[in-house]
Amino acid sequence: MSYKNEILLDVFKKKATERPPIWVMRQAGRILPGYRQVRASVSGFKELVTSPDLIAEVTVEPLEILGVDAAILFSDILVIPECMGLDYEIIPKKGPAFEKVISSPGDIDDLISGREAVDRLGYVFESITKTKARINGSNPLIGFSGAPWTLFAYMIEGGGSKTFSKARRFLYEHPEASHRLLDMISETIIVYLQEKIKYGVDLVQLFDSWAEMLPVEQYLEFSLPYVNKILAAITGVPKIFFPKGAWSIIPHMKDTPMDAISIDWKTPPSYVRQHLGDDIIIQGNMDPCYLYASQPRIMAKALQTMDEMGQRHIFNLGHGVYPDTDYTHVQTLINTVKTHRY
Amino acid sequence: MSYKNEILLDVFKKKATERPPIWVMRQAGRILPGYRQVRASVSGFKELVTSPDLIAEVTVEPLEILGVDAAILFSDILVIPECMGLDYEIIPKKGPAFEKVISSPGDIDDLISGREAVDRLGYVFESITKTKARINGSNPLIGFSGAPWTLFAYMIEGGGSKTFSKARRFLYEHPEASHRLLDMISETIIVYLQEKIKYGVDLVQLFDSWAEMLPVEQYLEFSLPYVNKILAAITGVPKIFFPKGAWSIIPHMKDTPMDAISIDWKTPPSYVRQHLGDDIIIQGNMDPCYLYASQPRIMAKALQTMDEMGQRHIFNLGHGVYPDTDYTHVQTLINTVKTHRY
Repeated sequence: MSYKNEILLDVFKKKATERPPIWVMRQAGRILPGYRQVRASVSGFKELVTSPDLIAEVTVEPLEILGVDAAILFSDILVIPECMGLDYEIIPKKGPAFEKVISSPGDIDDLISGREAVDRLGYVFESITKTKARINGSNPLIGFSGAPWTLFAYMIEGGGSKTFSKARRFLYEHPEASHRLLDMISETIIVYLQEKIKYGVDLVQLFDSWAEMLPVEQYLEFSLPYVNKILAAITGVPKIFFPKGAWSIIPHMKDTPMDAISIDWKTPPSYVRQHLGDDIIIQGNMDPCYLYASQPRIMAKALQTMDEMGQRHIFNLGHGVYPDTDYTHVQTLINTVKTHRY
Repeated sequence: MSYKNEILLDVFKKKATERPPIWVMRQAGRILPGYRQVRASVSGFKELVTSPDLIAEVTVEPLEILGVDAAILFSDILVIPECMGLDYEIIPKKGPAFEKVISSPGDIDDLISGREAVDRLGYVFESITKTKARINGSNPLIGFSGAPWTLFAYMIEGGGSKTFSKARRFLYEHPEASHRLLDMISETIIVYLQEKIKYGVDLVQLFDSWAEMLPVEQYLEFSLPYVNKILAAITGVPKIFFPKGAWSIIPHMKDTPMDAISIDWKTPPSYVRQHLGDDIIIQGNMDPCYLYASQPRIMAKALQTMDEMGQRHIFNLGHGVYPDTDYTHVQTLINTVKTHRY
């Protein structure tokens, strides 16, 4: 499959590009007027995330308005816990809330996993077909999933948390049950991502959003082996891994089968290259708060970031764009990157 | 001043000790029965934090029940914003909430700072006198303050936040006003800590709890210079600095005038020694979640931590003890450390 704008894929083919490709985490979301209109027209977030036509619409909007180099299929990482048997809601301004949670090892017996679970996600795969038709060969499409530890954390906590101490407590108190659940989640993610690729997704990104909560030894026991297993099972498309905040684990990722690592705004790229070598492709890492600054300052920061990153760089923020960001500021960022030449 | 148990001070005097000293962040708090009784007897957190007799009572309780090597004066980092003019409340299970906040540079004009502000904190100094009388020469007393960036963040946000994006936005939008406010906070902290020392505090700890929110360049502009200024102005007692989560700044702390650095559970001590040298005293860093595990596992983890840390170590957790921790598990930890020999 070839696209009019393939600069993102070219980076993974090790072709020399004249500038870094750019897309923005949460680009399809509340910063855009079309998204807000669609969101206001439905009963809630869950209706949007399960409606293939609406998903296609909000997924392509950033290509048209922001001019990013790739689309990312609108979805939520919590579709995995849901298809495994834990229903959730998104409470406006608060975040996810689960109806029931895993509070003891016995609760895991009620879950389903793998193909059986993924079969419940037909709407996601249908939305890929619809989105690809709307994109019509202009740009590649990214698909994503949460990483096992991050999904595990939500399944235990039942929502967000400052410390994720319930989930971490479960790891210390029930190590075997934890491994059993992480295995089931991983198996489900593998089927899910393979299916997404079959339907036409061109790249995948795995988000370990709560990587930063775990001490090194726990991350090495309860997260990284599952990430490695998933990334090894996914073939045929480039794979980006985002272990948010897990700087102390980066030296342990030499054998992680990823094609790019996405880093937050607190992680210097020099640190990553020191530990993972010069060949690794780095995605990131402008502070999303910088988009609140004046446009000249945003331009200066974008140039500084590109200087610091050098080649083998995918421009992105260090985290999802904040919902109250003025989207013309995002346009300024994207124009700055797109007119830059190495 | 000499104490029956001086092991914590001995570490700073570079004396050889037979084991690491131990105290626990938030040791005077909800894990203890006496604290809960006192807390239930008052109208709210604010009454407790302003009552010298009650402060003395909850401060000495961990010496008696847990057997820690030092007491830490019960207080809150938000007494500084309050004495500068921003009143707050602590909402049970939610955390701090301010009545008014700094939302524009003009709001800073309404604040007071330095001696004038600290003069409102007579109850803190009175509580030191009462606590010292209760301790009666058995153990040293630690006093603490929040660091300027962390207090600034609360003053802008008006409470806790997952991203502290309002506070970070203020830094990008109003850099001069930010420096003005950080200067006023620093000046107030200096007077506050000097006064605490005058009243008999034997060590101080500066908490930069939200250090981890800032990218390197912002931390170097808006936090570290103020920390350095405060620590340089404080003389005569050992100084511990806790830049929570700010691992990427540690290489920039070579000239920070601290006697010990406190680290969270995600920061390996080897990383600190690599950047700050073998002489630095390291405080920390057991994951507070580990105290939920079984007692044999807590003992094993404590031994492993002491092995990893070696000498020049003050045993502590990597963050405050979680309020629902069983205090007999904390006793197990403390007994393990106190019976260990290098």
